Amino acid sequence: MSNILILGGDGYLGWPTAMHLSAQGHVITVVDNYFRRDTCQALNVSMLYAVPSLPERAKVWFELTGKQIYVCITDLADPKSMRSLFNGTAEYQGKSVGAKTVPDTIIHYAEQPSAPFSMMNHQSADTTIVNNLRVTNNLMWAVRDLANEAHIIKLGTMGEYGTPDIDIEEGWIEINHKGRKDKFLFPRQGGSIYHTSKIMDTDLLWFGVRMWDLRVTDLMQGPVYGLETDQTLLDGRLGTIYNYDEIFGTIINRFVVQAIVGFPLTIYGQGGQTRGYLNIQDTIQCVDKSLQVPAERGELRIFNQIMETLSAREIAEIVQRVGLERGHKVTISHVENPRKEAEEHYYNPTYQGLIDIGVVPHFLTDGVVHRLFETVENHREAIRTDIIFKGIKWE
Amino acid sequence: MSNILILGGDGYLGWPTAMHLSAQGHVITVVDNYFRRDTCQALNVSMLYAVPSLPERAKVWFELTGKQIYVCITDLADPKSMRSLFNGTAEYQGKSVGAKTVPDTIIHYAEQPSAPFSMMNHQSADTTIVNNLRVTNNLMWAVRDLANEAHIIKLGTMGEYGTPDIDIEEGWIEINHKGRKDKFLFPRQGGSIYHTSKIMDTDLLWFGVRMWDLRVTDLMQGPVYGLETDQTLLDGRLGTIYNYDEIFGTIINRFVVQAIVGFPLTIYGQGGQTRGYLNIQDTIQCVDKSLQVPAERGELRIFNQIMETLSAREIAEIVQRVGLERGHKVTISHVENPRKEAEEHYYNPTYQGLIDIGVVPHFLTDGVVHRLFETVENHREAIRTDIIFKGIKWE
Repeated sequence: MSNILILGGDGYLGWPTAMHLSAQGHVITVVDNYFRRDTCQALNVSMLYAVPSLPERAKVWFELTGKQIYVCITDLADPKSMRSLFNGTAEYQGKSVGAKTVPDTIIHYAEQPSAPFSMMNHQSADTTIVNNLRVTNNLMWAVRDLANEAHIIKLGTMGEYGTPDIDIEEGWIEINHKGRKDKFLFPRQGGSIYHTSKIMDTDLLWFGVRMWDLRVTDLMQGPVYGLETDQTLLDGRLGTIYNYDEIFGTIINRFVVQAIVGFPLTIYGQGGQTRGYLNIQDTIQCVDKSLQVPAERGELRIFNQIMETLSAREIAEIVQRVGLERGHKVTISHVENPRKEAEEHYYNPTYQGLIDIGVVPHFLTDGVVHRLFETVENHREAIRTDIIFKGIKWE
Repeated sequence: MSNILILGGDGYLGWPTAMHLSAQGHVITVVDNYFRRDTCQALNVSMLYAVPSLPERAKVWFELTGKQIYVCITDLADPKSMRSLFNGTAEYQGKSVGAKTVPDTIIHYAEQPSAPFSMMNHQSADTTIVNNLRVTNNLMWAVRDLANEAHIIKLGTMGEYGTPDIDIEEGWIEINHKGRKDKFLFPRQGGSIYHTSKIMDTDLLWFGVRMWDLRVTDLMQGPVYGLETDQTLLDGRLGTIYNYDEIFGTIINRFVVQAIVGFPLTIYGQGGQTRGYLNIQDTIQCVDKSLQVPAERGELRIFNQIMETLSAREIAEIVQRVGLERGHKVTISHVENPRKEAEEHYYNPTYQGLIDIGVVPHFLTDGVVHRLFETVENHREAIRTDIIFKGIKWE
């Protein structure tokens, strides 16, 4: 059993990961600064349903399972806070106990995760860069200084690669140039300040791996959809944060909400933008398998964490088809693209590494979309149409 | 004539650049937060000679030439401070006037420039990343929002490329992969947190150029040596900052000091580490030519700013030869390498772009080294041998 820190443990992916790994018997500490909750409040965007605080969720989890999830509410951009999790000085909520031993695995979700947020203005760009880089840097040094055998599992994004005109490999590429060759990180160029901050994270972790023989798995994840895992289904109070606004909502989750309230499915331009996607259950599988088969010391192991590629148009069509079957009036509208990106482009990413270590993919079938509709329909009354589209422009 | 902001205008390169461009008749505003001076004080490392404050230097310059250099002492990591230089709200020292019009060129030297400093501990790494990224990000947004025609001339470093086993091109490379091809930033992997922060700067500026059609010249500079320019020679009080300690001193400048006081020239390992170098006069030429022939809108123009490549061993040998000729007892000692880097490696960078726009290179001849000795010998009494080697380790 591992002693695991989950940084960003209050988030859409963090909390379900925590419950899943706690259920497996690992010792789990979740750490968060409530950035997402605070920002939703500040921007006046609601979640689909209210989610209890992290200590409250941990209490419900304990009552149902008898398993303790330790909770620490702190800002990891402060090096002292980060190091407190490794040197026994952290303060935990509810219980005075915490991780008594040095963590052997750190799952790092503690980032400002929204591309549109990062593009709102210079302050939000600054917040994104400073938060994401400081947390990653603080983590890297804490592991170097205080837990140098620990395995860092970091959530990156497929968006780091952009949409190059060559096949996207899993993190690395051998370049042949003027009769010589060498191996490099696959070229990266992101479509937002958020994506750029993730590229910088990769630059930084690659430095730490080269210099100090850190042990890092970097998961290049695509947009995630869904809200159910084996653990969220145990009790309504264990549900994960579900955003459907333009800032924090991901495309498939947003489209289902829009379909239910009769808000047109908004496609940017012709909707040819193709990306890789995955079900929230597969995020958890991927993290779990990465934990079971850790990276070596001195290895930056990169996996492309997607299960299939789909265009925005294809996603709209699936959601429309299922929505119509369920009696919703679903229309698709093509709006001017607020992002500067190619609307039709080559896109051929490799994604084999996670399958090779045992991940069994789920796909976006009509059945899966029906189930997503079913759950969201239960919260229909709470949906606010005013927050679906805010009109943030990239340029 | 241009209206030019020089960010980091108090530094080793910033101040000579300011005087040179002021002499040409441009309107110059220098901006600095005295990071270098404050850090030298905090770390107890002296400069070779005392350098007056920035307002005092500007006053001397005005007295000698009748030309005004505007001075603003502020921390550009704060977005408000950065934007004040573009929206007319900045506060200038000495005179209440400042740049009345929007700048058309910004020369960005305002970075924590020391690799050893960045590797001291987690705080110094954090300071490096946060300062360098925030200043570059704040600059990029200020130009986007308030001066979108302006030309950014940014000092990068050759160290961003590391020492790959393929030829180093000027910033870009076309990659042929599985029958398709695309053009990318040349792969980057730096040898310190400082170098990594500069890679991140490049990531960020490339994003700004793609997204907002910014106009950027990124100068991948090698280590600079020397201290004389046409303007520093006018008056002793106009000399530039000259560090010879392990933190802020560059190799050639340090070796000359070490030779004079009989401190062995310290070579890491066998000294096969090969890099590109340039004379401070050529830095100024390169910046001036880049200003005269600006990048286009939507262009990230990258030049490799070096004039020749030399190994650490070759540099030690030149300095030893000249030192012996001048009657100094100069020895070379091989110390364990505190850095994690290849001691013998392939190194073949291209550096043609700046020559193509008119830069005429100076080389590290014996005559140039003699002149450097002559100047440093005048300050011999002030040299502190205790600060030459501090023993900062990378690992």
